[in-house]
Amino acid sequence: MLARVSSSPTFKRLPRAVREQQMLDAAVKVFSRRGFHAASMDEIADDAGISKPMVYAYLGTKEELFVACLHRETARMMEAIAGAAAPDLPADQRLWRGLRAFFGFVGAHRDGWAVLYRQARGSQPFAGELAAMRTRLVDVVAGMLDHALRAEGREVAGTELELVAYALVGASESLADWLADHPEADPERTATRMMNVAWLGAGQLLHGVTWRPPTP
Amino acid sequence: MLARVSSSPTFKRLPRAVREQQMLDAAVKVFSRRGFHAASMDEIADDAGISKPMVYAYLGTKEELFVACLHRETARMMEAIAGAAAPDLPADQRLWRGLRAFFGFVGAHRDGWAVLYRQARGSQPFAGELAAMRTRLVDVVAGMLDHALRAEGREVAGTELELVAYALVGASESLADWLADHPEADPERTATRMMNVAWLGAGQLLHGVTWRPPTP
Repeated sequence: MLARVSSSPTFKRLPRAVREQQMLDAAVKVFSRRGFHAASMDEIADDAGISKPMVYAYLGTKEELFVACLHRETARMMEAIAGAAAPDLPADQRLWRGLRAFFGFVGAHRDGWAVLYRQARGSQPFAGELAAMRTRLVDVVAGMLDHALRAEGREVAGTELELVAYALVGASESLADWLADHPEADPERTATRMMNVAWLGAGQLLHGVTWRPPTP
Repeated sequence: MLARVSSSPTFKRLPRAVREQQMLDAAVKVFSRRGFHAASMDEIADDAGISKPMVYAYLGTKEELFVACLHRETARMMEAIAGAAAPDLPADQRLWRGLRAFFGFVGAHRDGWAVLYRQARGSQPFAGELAAMRTRLVDVVAGMLDHALRAEGREVAGTELELVAYALVGASESLADWLADHPEADPERTATRMMNVAWLGAGQLLHGVTWRPPTP
């Protein structure tokens, strides 16, 4: 149950959490449409149907708002990936489901990815936020690999797994950039491509071995 | 033979190309030391032993100078990679040599990579320069794969090769970032790690298959 902030019937008060989500929805839309620098707080407030001072009061400066957008979008992405990769499946199925969720998310938010993610990559203080997100992704992938290894009764040093995970995350980011730039490209096919590289490696690809998604 | 610009013995005139390289050396050093925003044209001019108006006259604004640095550093990197990956070797040996050259370059220029490359990634107009460099790298890798496939009498659609190349370049960039942040890490070991992921794939790694560099 959400507590009402005010009992007055004349003000339609929404809980703070709901208001914040509305502002973030508007901000993601405007940042995607205009880019960070050209985006104005006026347009964001307008789009959220809320006064500009209220936006500042709730979420701070444009920079802070951008970071809040980054946080929410990456949290959503992480949830989509983690939710898809059920731990009881074999390693290739988990990787496949995680990749499909990732590219599905990017495919459904091409503008958001292009603006939020690419802009965040190079400019302080956003780069730090993004590095933290990447670290979480690397941890998830390294954990998945570790789990798969243990299931086979094997163990590999943490640093080694971390490096493999860094490579896989970097490869996925690179293909996500490609996907964001190609509106006609299919996220599921992109995930299959990535799966082929990640799971089989170039050596097997060159010999004509192909990984195919399981038939439903 | 380099032509002398002036015959006057009182001015030690250097050919323009030499002067430019000196300025670029100084600029890369200062950008690496300070970051793009904090770097001053005064410090760069000072470091190059040349007057500030001369730097502007030769290489333009600070933005243009940064782009010129990016150009030169990426050209050097591309040369190192292309020179290492001799076309008559088997595909895995070419990939290995290319990766070793790449991580060797990054390992020898950790500061430069961190500053030039990361800063360029997120901020216009540098992002365009970097995207062009990445496209060239993708072309090199896709060409290498295509060459290897033809050698086996096989052919794969260009888009498919391009996607595999994007994934490999992204994975390498990600590990390069990691390498730049870990001064104690060995570039050759990082290249071996990347080779394992790229050539063998996670599936084989999980089953204990390992790729090892050829013994010299």
